[in-house]
Amino acid sequence: MPNKLIRTTAAALGFITLALVNPPAPRAEAGAESAAIASANHVFDEALSARDIAAMDTIWAHERYVVAVHPASKTPIIGWAAVRKSWEATFDRFAEISVSMQDPQIRINENVAWVVGLEEIRGKLKNGEAATFMAFTTNIFEKIDGHWLMVLHTTSRVPH
Amino acid sequence: MPNKLIRTTAAALGFITLALVNPPAPRAEAGAESAAIASANHVFDEALSARDIAAMDTIWAHERYVVAVHPASKTPIIGWAAVRKSWEATFDRFAEISVSMQDPQIRINENVAWVVGLEEIRGKLKNGEAATFMAFTTNIFEKIDGHWLMVLHTTSRVPH
Repeated sequence: MPNKLIRTTAAALGFITLALVNPPAPRAEAGAESAAIASANHVFDEALSARDIAAMDTIWAHERYVVAVHPASKTPIIGWAAVRKSWEATFDRFAEISVSMQDPQIRINENVAWVVGLEEIRGKLKNGEAATFMAFTTNIFEKIDGHWLMVLHTTSRVPH
Repeated sequence: MPNKLIRTTAAALGFITLALVNPPAPRAEAGAESAAIASANHVFDEALSARDIAAMDTIWAHERYVVAVHPASKTPIIGWAAVRKSWEATFDRFAEISVSMQDPQIRINENVAWVVGLEEIRGKLKNGEAATFMAFTTNIFEKIDGHWLMVLHTTSRVPH
């Protein structure tokens, strides 16, 4: 058997090796992923504005490491069980909420994405008191089984 | 040349291919990476407490997408040039700062890690005014060329 065949075989396997080790860039463009994150962020604001706990159930990762900090929080809220309770308490306290983020800053790194922006929060408590203010919000998402799920949400009032 | 040699060559290349495509689990344990993040977070607090802009230069990724929100910020500060200026302005305003995070919550996902915690900030402005308060801080790091660099830092006062 000629050496040429061995070289050809080796070259072919080498090519396959290179192709596997250096895969082509993902077909989904950065723009498409960025749009997916902007959408996930918007869906969250919609769920919050609708005071929809079932939507929160699908938006959040149900993990022990998820974190929330609300405008009135005194300590970080850690773990899905506690975070879910904090949403129930928020939804119970407000008669109306409307939240929207201006000019979200999005960064994606592999299976993690984060969004930072200013939010206008317009709320009315059940006791009739108005609660309207500007806030900073940071949201972190992880891509889990192909879905971008929220793993961190912090909101704090912009100081006067 | 015998077929055996071709099979041996193919098997060897196949083995190399598999070894490259399915690398063994990273040798650094989750605990070691977690310690690296805790350390990076602590180094940041030390740099802030020392009002050391040169340390900030090595701690932060010099990227357009980095973000900072300080306790007195009115809008998010975007991009390394602006973030660096904001540290210079902070260090210029304070005669003393001391910052330390209690019980940091750390999560690592591939080349991204984030830390959330309560911080006690003890400061004295150059005009003599004391500025001591509790704050929520979120820090995000990216592993770039083997180094964990800060890409986001937000701090906000815990409400009364």
